Amino acid sequence: MTPFPPSLERVITSLEKLPGIGKKTARRLGFFLLTAEKEYVLEMAQALQDLTKYIQFCEICHSIAEGSLCEICQDPHRDRGTICVVEEPADIFIFERTGFKGLYHVIGGVLSPLDGVGPDDLNLQDLVKRAAEAREIILAINASIEGETTTLFLTQLLADQNVKVTRLARGLPVGGNLEYVDDLTISRSLTERVSVTDG
Amino acid sequence: MTPFPPSLERVITSLEKLPGIGKKTARRLGFFLLTAEKEYVLEMAQALQDLTKYIQFCEICHSIAEGSLCEICQDPHRDRGTICVVEEPADIFIFERTGFKGLYHVIGGVLSPLDGVGPDDLNLQDLVKRAAEAREIILAINASIEGETTTLFLTQLLADQNVKVTRLARGLPVGGNLEYVDDLTISRSLTERVSVTDG
Repeated sequence: MTPFPPSLERVITSLEKLPGIGKKTARRLGFFLLTAEKEYVLEMAQALQDLTKYIQFCEICHSIAEGSLCEICQDPHRDRGTICVVEEPADIFIFERTGFKGLYHVIGGVLSPLDGVGPDDLNLQDLVKRAAEAREIILAINASIEGETTTLFLTQLLADQNVKVTRLARGLPVGGNLEYVDDLTISRSLTERVSVTDG
Repeated sequence: MTPFPPSLERVITSLEKLPGIGKKTARRLGFFLLTAEKEYVLEMAQALQDLTKYIQFCEICHSIAEGSLCEICQDPHRDRGTICVVEEPADIFIFERTGFKGLYHVIGGVLSPLDGVGPDDLNLQDLVKRAAEAREIILAINASIEGETTTLFLTQLLADQNVKVTRLARGLPVGGNLEYVDDLTISRSLTERVSVTDG
């Protein structure tokens, strides 16, 4: 028997469904919210409602937007000739931190026959169309097995287009110590070694 | 620059204020909620609103309740002669798991001169009144330094009342290996040793 009042129980049950939040953490957060300032809890509730109301997907790049186009696709200062292809909207914000000034294209996942994800389940149709008008397509898919397969698939898909296709470099992380880097990365850093002299 | 759409940004900012949730986790949860089912997100929002609307403090024991009395104080099957004194409402649910059948009294914290918490800041007035009608008061305050001070203070406060006052036993945790138990606990387990023969 856990005689939590029903409204607290419902908050805890909701929190439990969040990824990485277990039963104990959900309870702790529930009791925190119970004694937290009313304004804060109500603001969180309102923000969640607004999230379901206002967020949609950008018609051009399939990233998230409040409106039919995302801020990046609307921005006249971006380099419209370079398109960075990513898996998820969250990835965009990682590249934004680097100061990348091109556009993006969110394919919405990776090819995964085991999970029943085929080419038709990804946003590829309009990627081909967009590629026709671009100078360079950067494939910025994760370096997982499915990700590598997807990168290969996209490379072939875009081969007929008159566009330069690149992918992210693989190698040692900046500041990485050889001792702590996994063998596969070491091996990739050897294969993709870069010349430092003109000799 | 992080061009998250405003409603996503607000959800992330709210989540960041939860204890133990950092910037990265808040972002991850924000993106999870973004792609989660609408019904789930709206249910979470509704539960939070209801939490601020319906939860109040029980007039008898100061625990949380939906209404003026909590479920435990309303329950006619509880032993009304035994009152377990705890710091916070969350503590009640720990003792409920043990099958304890008495009532509770939430004092709402511990004495802490450094944090400016004195006897007047705790729910002690009506504890004395309730003690007058009880057989036994169990002091179930945490074994922290402030907690021990509070237990001592409550012992003196209740000394004049015609009521048995007990506190939780200190000793080895059940299943605990001597090797891994701290010295203070070992020392307490010696002081509070229990006779096992009649000799």
